[in-house]
Amino acid sequence: MKLAVIGVGLIGGSFALALKQAKAVSHVVGVGRNAANLELALARGAIDAIAPDVASAARDADLVLVSTPVAQFPKIFASLGSSRAVITDGGSTKRDVIAAARQALGKRVARFVPAHPIAGAEKSGAGAASAELFRGKRVVLTPLKENASSAVDRVEQAWTACGARISRMDAGEHDAVLAAVSHLPHLLAFALVHEVAKRRNSAQLFSFAAGGFRDFTRIASSHPEMWRDICIANRDRLMTELSKYEKKLSRVKALLDNPARLEKLFAEARDARDKWIRSS
Amino acid sequence: MKLAVIGVGLIGGSFALALKQAKAVSHVVGVGRNAANLELALARGAIDAIAPDVASAARDADLVLVSTPVAQFPKIFASLGSSRAVITDGGSTKRDVIAAARQALGKRVARFVPAHPIAGAEKSGAGAASAELFRGKRVVLTPLKENASSAVDRVEQAWTACGARISRMDAGEHDAVLAAVSHLPHLLAFALVHEVAKRRNSAQLFSFAAGGFRDFTRIASSHPEMWRDICIANRDRLMTELSKYEKKLSRVKALLDNPARLEKLFAEARDARDKWIRSS
Repeated sequence: MKLAVIGVGLIGGSFALALKQAKAVSHVVGVGRNAANLELALARGAIDAIAPDVASAARDADLVLVSTPVAQFPKIFASLGSSRAVITDGGSTKRDVIAAARQALGKRVARFVPAHPIAGAEKSGAGAASAELFRGKRVVLTPLKENASSAVDRVEQAWTACGARISRMDAGEHDAVLAAVSHLPHLLAFALVHEVAKRRNSAQLFSFAAGGFRDFTRIASSHPEMWRDICIANRDRLMTELSKYEKKLSRVKALLDNPARLEKLFAEARDARDKWIRSS
Repeated sequence: MKLAVIGVGLIGGSFALALKQAKAVSHVVGVGRNAANLELALARGAIDAIAPDVASAARDADLVLVSTPVAQFPKIFASLGSSRAVITDGGSTKRDVIAAARQALGKRVARFVPAHPIAGAEKSGAGAASAELFRGKRVVLTPLKENASSAVDRVEQAWTACGARISRMDAGEHDAVLAAVSHLPHLLAFALVHEVAKRRNSAQLFSFAAGGFRDFTRIASSHPEMWRDICIANRDRLMTELSKYEKKLSRVKALLDNPARLEKLFAEARDARDKWIRSS
């Protein structure tokens, strides 16, 4: 099986490495904006060849993974119109990606099976890719009513070969769930670091920040362009989550003179988190 | 040197273990509310004896560490009035602790040297204590104008023997700095987990939460009573930080239809955090 990877970063590079390790692909061609990154992907054995553009990368491919920041998807799908390959993607939002695919691919959208590997990291680029990135992690498929079952099977087999656990979900539900547990926390972390960084005494503030701050803000070291695209693509769901969170903060603020209820809220949060950690 | 530890949890237990390892103390007596926890501290060698109350624990001590949640400090200081020991503490807030000490100790407050070891963890209790907890970590001293220099020296030597790096700061400045980089993030993490936990679809939400959510919310597994006390003791500074953060969120929200400025904010946050991580 021949694979084309459009955007050979953390996700694309890891997909290629994992499928090679599983001997599920025989040849991988990569394409991307950053020549140095593609050379690194080549040197690391994630890809076997660099294509000059999306259309040539996909020409002989059986499977195409689109794994760039999501704002680039419309243009990429437009270049995939003549490809006969099954297409999947690594985008963190699904409604916008599906709309772009329908717009660009028309009837051929039947070959596009949307996917979101929930396996990000604050590292990016081919240098951070790993054959193990998806092992034990969830990949959400949001298949289209137009999808041929053979296309869904091929995509599911590929992600399964990477070691992932497959879930299926409606695209709208996916975007709502991820807004709550991924997109909002990223926005909150970026906002906190930015707030601290812009203070006059930011050097002092950072110098007394410890392990709690480091872990809370780890996701604020994530790829700015990728997260810009996610936040804008999923703006409506994210706004809903932000508004709920703002209301929650107002309520917490009001509890700062109510020790018993404040402790109860903290204890409920801790118990819920500990239960989740134990079960995951 | 004989040490008394009031509250033998993560901080108190680690202080005792570290000073024993450094051979800076010969005998440690512990007191606390939880008999099972004290037995564990004894079994782990953090303490050599259990005292029935604060006054008896401190009777023959040269150094006393008060390391309970801060709301208990007034009562504890009241029991330390007749002790001739030098006293330090592990409280995460300093203005309230100092006020309580002045109130209870009167002139004898000269022997109390306030300290905040910035080395918390989401784990608590004697079982989580470690001789290495403070190694390379900051301990902020906020000495009082009344302090004898010999008392400050003894306290500084003890924390240094634990492997900590000592800083000195005004108590008000300490509380403002920690509100920004510690107390606010804790509140934000508790609030997010609570929000997710109270949704009808919380099981689904948690099941799609991944590494970013896990790290962002790690501090929401912290000790509820301890954090209740911190938030209430430092309420004014925390309110200031919360209000600034709420304003920042409003501004970020407004950027959700401005891709260029949103990306700029994300990039500035990432760069500031990466610079901090590299330097720390």
